[in-house]
Amino acid sequence: MNVLAVGAHPDDVEILCAGTLIRYRRAGHSVGICVLTNGDLGAPDGDKATIAAVREREARRSAEVIGARLFLLGEPDGFLFDSPSTRIAFAEVLREFRPDVLFAPDPNDYHPDHRAASAIALNSLVLAASPLQRTGSPAIDALPAVYHMDTLALVGAAPQRWVDISDALGTKLDMLAAHRSQNDWLRCTDGVDYLDYATKQARLRGLQCGTAAAEAFRAPEFFPIHRAGSTLPGLDDQPGLDHQGD
Amino acid sequence: MNVLAVGAHPDDVEILCAGTLIRYRRAGHSVGICVLTNGDLGAPDGDKATIAAVREREARRSAEVIGARLFLLGEPDGFLFDSPSTRIAFAEVLREFRPDVLFAPDPNDYHPDHRAASAIALNSLVLAASPLQRTGSPAIDALPAVYHMDTLALVGAAPQRWVDISDALGTKLDMLAAHRSQNDWLRCTDGVDYLDYATKQARLRGLQCGTAAAEAFRAPEFFPIHRAGSTLPGLDDQPGLDHQGD
Amino acid sequence: MNVLAVGAHPDDVEILCAGTLIRYRRAGHSVGICVLTNGDLGAPDGDKATIAAVREREARRSAEVIGARLFLLGEPDGFLFDSPSTRIAFAEVLREFRPDVLFAPDPNDYHPDHRAASAIALNSLVLAASPLQRTGSPAIDALPAVYHMDTLALVGAAPQRWVDISDALGTKLDMLAAHRSQNDWLRCTDGVDYLDYATKQARLRGLQCGTAAAEAFRAPEFFPIHRAGSTLPGLDDQPGLDHQGD
Amino acid sequence: MNVLAVGAHPDDVEILCAGTLIRYRRAGHSVGICVLTNGDLGAPDGDKATIAAVREREARRSAEVIGARLFLLGEPDGFLFDSPSTRIAFAEVLREFRPDVLFAPDPNDYHPDHRAASAIALNSLVLAASPLQRTGSPAIDALPAVYHMDTLALVGAAPQRWVDISDALGTKLDMLAAHRSQNDWLRCTDGVDYLDYATKQARLRGLQCGTAAAEAFRAPEFFPIHRAGSTLPGLDDQPGLDHQGD
Amino acid sequence: MNVLAVGAHPDDVEILCAGTLIRYRRAGHSVGICVLTNGDLGAPDGDKATIAAVREREARRSAEVIGARLFLLGEPDGFLFDSPSTRIAFAEVLREFRPDVLFAPDPNDYHPDHRAASAIALNSLVLAASPLQRTGSPAIDALPAVYHMDTLALVGAAPQRWVDISDALGTKLDMLAAHRSQNDWLRCTDGVDYLDYATKQARLRGLQCGTAAAEAFRAPEFFPIHRAGSTLPGLDDQPGLDHQGD
Amino acid sequence: MNVLAVGAHPDDVEILCAGTLIRYRRAGHSVGICVLTNGDLGAPDGDKATIAAVREREARRSAEVIGARLFLLGEPDGFLFDSPSTRIAFAEVLREFRPDVLFAPDPNDYHPDHRAASAIALNSLVLAASPLQRTGSPAIDALPAVYHMDTLALVGAAPQRWVDISDALGTKLDMLAAHRSQNDWLRCTDGVDYLDYATKQARLRGLQCGTAAAEAFRAPEFFPIHRAGSTLPGLDDQPGLDHQGD
Repeated sequence: MNVLAVGAHPDDVEILCAGTLIRYRRAGHSVGICVLTNGDLGAPDGDKATIAAVREREARRSAEVIGARLFLLGEPDGFLFDSPSTRIAFAEVLREFRPDVLFAPDPNDYHPDHRAASAIALNSLVLAASPLQRTGSPAIDALPAVYHMDTLALVGAAPQRWVDISDALGTKLDMLAAHRSQNDWLRCTDGVDYLDYATKQARLRGLQCGTAAAEAFRAPEFFPIHRAGSTLPGLDDQPGLDHQGD
Repeated sequence: MNVLAVGAHPDDVEILCAGTLIRYRRAGHSVGICVLTNGDLGAPDGDKATIAAVREREARRSAEVIGARLFLLGEPDGFLFDSPSTRIAFAEVLREFRPDVLFAPDPNDYHPDHRAASAIALNSLVLAASPLQRTGSPAIDALPAVYHMDTLALVGAAPQRWVDISDALGTKLDMLAAHRSQNDWLRCTDGVDYLDYATKQARLRGLQCGTAAAEAFRAPEFFPIHRAGSTLPGLDDQPGLDHQGD
Repeated sequence: MNVLAVGAHPDDVEILCAGTLIRYRRAGHSVGICVLTNGDLGAPDGDKATIAAVREREARRSAEVIGARLFLLGEPDGFLFDSPSTRIAFAEVLREFRPDVLFAPDPNDYHPDHRAASAIALNSLVLAASPLQRTGSPAIDALPAVYHMDTLALVGAAPQRWVDISDALGTKLDMLAAHRSQNDWLRCTDGVDYLDYATKQARLRGLQCGTAAAEAFRAPEFFPIHRAGSTLPGLDDQPGLDHQGD
Repeated sequence: MNVLAVGAHPDDVEILCAGTLIRYRRAGHSVGICVLTNGDLGAPDGDKATIAAVREREARRSAEVIGARLFLLGEPDGFLFDSPSTRIAFAEVLREFRPDVLFAPDPNDYHPDHRAASAIALNSLVLAASPLQRTGSPAIDALPAVYHMDTLALVGAAPQRWVDISDALGTKLDMLAAHRSQNDWLRCTDGVDYLDYATKQARLRGLQCGTAAAEAFRAPEFFPIHRAGSTLPGLDDQPGLDHQGD
Repeated sequence: MNVLAVGAHPDDVEILCAGTLIRYRRAGHSVGICVLTNGDLGAPDGDKATIAAVREREARRSAEVIGARLFLLGEPDGFLFDSPSTRIAFAEVLREFRPDVLFAPDPNDYHPDHRAASAIALNSLVLAASPLQRTGSPAIDALPAVYHMDTLALVGAAPQRWVDISDALGTKLDMLAAHRSQNDWLRCTDGVDYLDYATKQARLRGLQCGTAAAEAFRAPEFFPIHRAGSTLPGLDDQPGLDHQGD
Repeated sequence: MNVLAVGAHPDDVEILCAGTLIRYRRAGHSVGICVLTNGDLGAPDGDKATIAAVREREARRSAEVIGARLFLLGEPDGFLFDSPSTRIAFAEVLREFRPDVLFAPDPNDYHPDHRAASAIALNSLVLAASPLQRTGSPAIDALPAVYHMDTLALVGAAPQRWVDISDALGTKLDMLAAHRSQNDWLRCTDGVDYLDYATKQARLRGLQCGTAAAEAFRAPEFFPIHRAGSTLPGLDDQPGLDHQGD
């Protein structure tokens, strides 16, 4: 299977979804990470182009930890909007990578770019599946199963699925550590250590489901619902990943 | 695995959950059906004891279709309450049958007995798991995974899991047909045919997830959440069925 | 048509529903008011039996203002519960009065007796419609259309229907004034004037829908939903008041 | 009365609202249908301009079935946004047709164009009522009563009004059949028959309210609420359609 | 402390928040009012530029009543959108005024400009706090505490905080009276008197919390939550107003 | 002020509320803890009376840590119900201790006894305030401000108030450690360490509001709302703790 996670900034996907991506990789699946902005506001000072370059390097280093394919769409940090051009750009990513499973930010997460990323991800699906919408690659034949990631610090989230990442937490922290510039900044301005932060969130999600660490997700309430089959314990249908939206 | 479904009246479980129970049976699991009341208001006229006897026969016939074990608790129809005695009675069923998966009515379903059945099912779990609560059988070692069934006619329901019952719909209708007295009564007073009703609901749930027929469920939002693991496509953990509540 | 409103204490129905009952009376319909408790905690001092007698007189005086039939069930104030006996008592009221429309308290109103009254009202319907549940009167043939009244001071309410009571507000205040003991008590302990209170609430509900005064309601989300037909402007079906629950 | 339904694509209005429009026509009211996009992604292959032309013809044929006035705004399929130009264009439709009742898509329906159509419909009302916003026609004097249509396959919908379309279902299917290109496409790619689909949804909404077929709606929660009056059975006020927003 | 309230049109802030601003002024704090549009649709006839000029004068007069600093951003009435330019403009206001507390419209209020103002207010915070986003003023060091105002006529609102404005209601009405053109218009077209309207709403919010008049608010559910400390009676921590978003 | 926290079992209050109680004590207020059941199911084996005695000793030891007054009502563990007798018993506690602030469990917490405790706490208020309901103590003159505690592991909770317990966490763990029998049992059956559990939850609530540790609360949505005044930063009204419900 192909598994794609999309975030607004370099490191967004890692914070809320890396453990699950690691598990998919270990299970032999292909993993992609798509970052919609260049993250060029992500520093206390300096030059925007330099920041963007630093963050791109960090994103590559993180993706390499699990051999994930990286898509960088380069929108301006702080100004991500659901627009024709961002929809088309992400639709082309969907067509190139052809995910079976797609992880997108929570539509109510705290940062406006995160909420825009959530909208772009969902609103591009129908374009990616429409043959008459021409991009560089052919239309996808089927919509991926879509899940929203958790919110930062669990504020307002209402997950329905928990993934045990007890054995993946160390590697998740390695991926986060690759985003060194962000951790330096947060430690300096907020006194927050990134890795400690992500660990606390994973531990709490683990408390909820009885594991040492977990990540949490929920499916958006949109037609068509792709999850008939294997979703109850012991019933082993293949998920119905063959339905085309319109 | 042991799979138990609990309803207030004979036929409640069949209407909303039979297709899923059939699938569990076909997958080789043990299935139990627990009926909390005797259904003795379920007729336009006649004698209550006679009605109860008719409905018990129908319940047995229906359970036999899939070789399900039947538990009849005999509470008075229309007066089911979450009380010490109903909790203890159902806790003993949980201890005897020791389910891994438990299906209970939606807490907001339309009939007061259904709502009471939902409460009894959930409120008995902790008693069944408490060794110092003595009943005929030893305490259960782990809580089952719990799911709420759909509501009648989908009114107010918000499911999260869909089970494809396309191949089980015929057998589901056979089970419903066993409750002949109820179908006769509904046809007479409401002009409603039971089997037609259940078919329409299954077809619509099928529309939602792209199958010919489906049943829908959701998990209650209670600690501990047992579903870490196999809940995302392609991640094949065993569900964590080993946690003791209290 | 027969229109029944049920409340926990003498004056509950008047506060939130009197304007609508007045309009029904003026349109030529029969109106009933059912009070589930005797209201015997409703005084700062004195004897409970005396208080109950005072409140009964006040309830009768209020009902006489619009010629409503009064049902007093006499449960103890502060201790109203949804139980077999309260269900059976209210089911008999339903069978005697045979309402086409039933108004019940909001299930989340602030007073525990109000919430119990809401539950009793809804949970008795199925008993009233079951021929084998014997009471003094024959089973009802059809369920009434049910609406929840507003909450006190609009706290937490989410109404869907607004009734213009601009021309009925004066009479509503007359009915409230009949409950003189309550107004005396509230003025003394809380500095609140009853009639002023109800006026402010009616004025605000009026603001919402563009009238001088209004009362607000919502329908519970239960199967079967009886409102096909006349619910959109200009479509004049008769409401489907002929469906029997089960 | 004038009754207007607005959708994103040719056929959207028919799927969720045609039965109700048919009933309005039969009751002697004027009906309008406004389609915001040209639907030019609605085919597996071919030329966008050709597709758009085919769909326009189909939309006309469908509208002719009930003698509805058709407004085609020609936005690009898949890229409908709530913007100054789409608001102004729809405000002019509101001013030309001057609806008393307006049906708009659910704000959470599954297709991004549907959600945009819902936003455009609501956000244009205030412009249409503002005299200083100049378009070809004079400002409307009053806001229409607004209702959201159902969602596709009922996913996530929470309707409050049900309209009996038992006698209109045949004509509804005729209107849907006029959109032949879409049915051909869906049958081919998804194995779904349009007419069968709409029938199942109407049957299920009928189950909920005790009719053979129904369509379902809900009112948005916005000030001012126009529905004082005739909204309870037997109270026959005219709906308050005379309030101007701002 | 610096306290900033933002609204879409001149008078929006006054209707829902003036009493609270008055109380802040009386407690010695600085108050700012930011109006995002020029309100140039706010008249039944005349010239847009003239209307805008009238409304600016009225806004100044109202602000002068309490010595509030006024920010006028001049977006076109009826067409307020969350866009790069409106975000940057409001971010600069945040940097100039440097509020400790920010009041923004409810995200679901009835007017599209109000909903856009709510989005702009929240989506600009992160820009205002990002040093690399250059505007005329330096980045803010900490995010303000944010509260949503009430909705008009309480439709759909779910407040969590009530502010007693019994002693400020007179001054609030003075501020509203400064917006004479709007009151004239509303009285003419809707028969609504502004001051009466605001009084009824304040009286009802007062009923809810036991005061003669009140305004109501709620905090958005976004990370980071700044309100540790003084939020329970008798615990007198200073609110944690020192956290920087990212 | 007098601050009362009520829980179903010995240790319930400590897990979710101890840090806040410690802060109240340090601020010089009186603190009470009311435990509704005897907790006699709280062991893997042994004699119920012995278990109850052990837990009473542990509860006393914990309360002594902060000099809290302890009320033990002795209902049977696993069978707590909202009934006349439990309401009267808790109303007498309210009258004896006369709290200004009352903490009760979340109405949707995971354990049926917790949900019952939540109901009993709220449903007793009106009795406690009714002079004609005779118990050993005179009626309370005013209702306390009421807050719901957090849920276990944050499942389903939606808090509105956060209390910084960074400096109180150590003492909270001391109180929890007093309940040694429970920690022994949980470590044995679930491999869970109590103190570690509570620490993780406090750390996560701290993440949300930018402190090292926190506890979270929300107010029930009931009339009358007592919180006018001091609820916004910098507005220093005394909370309106003088309103009598009924």
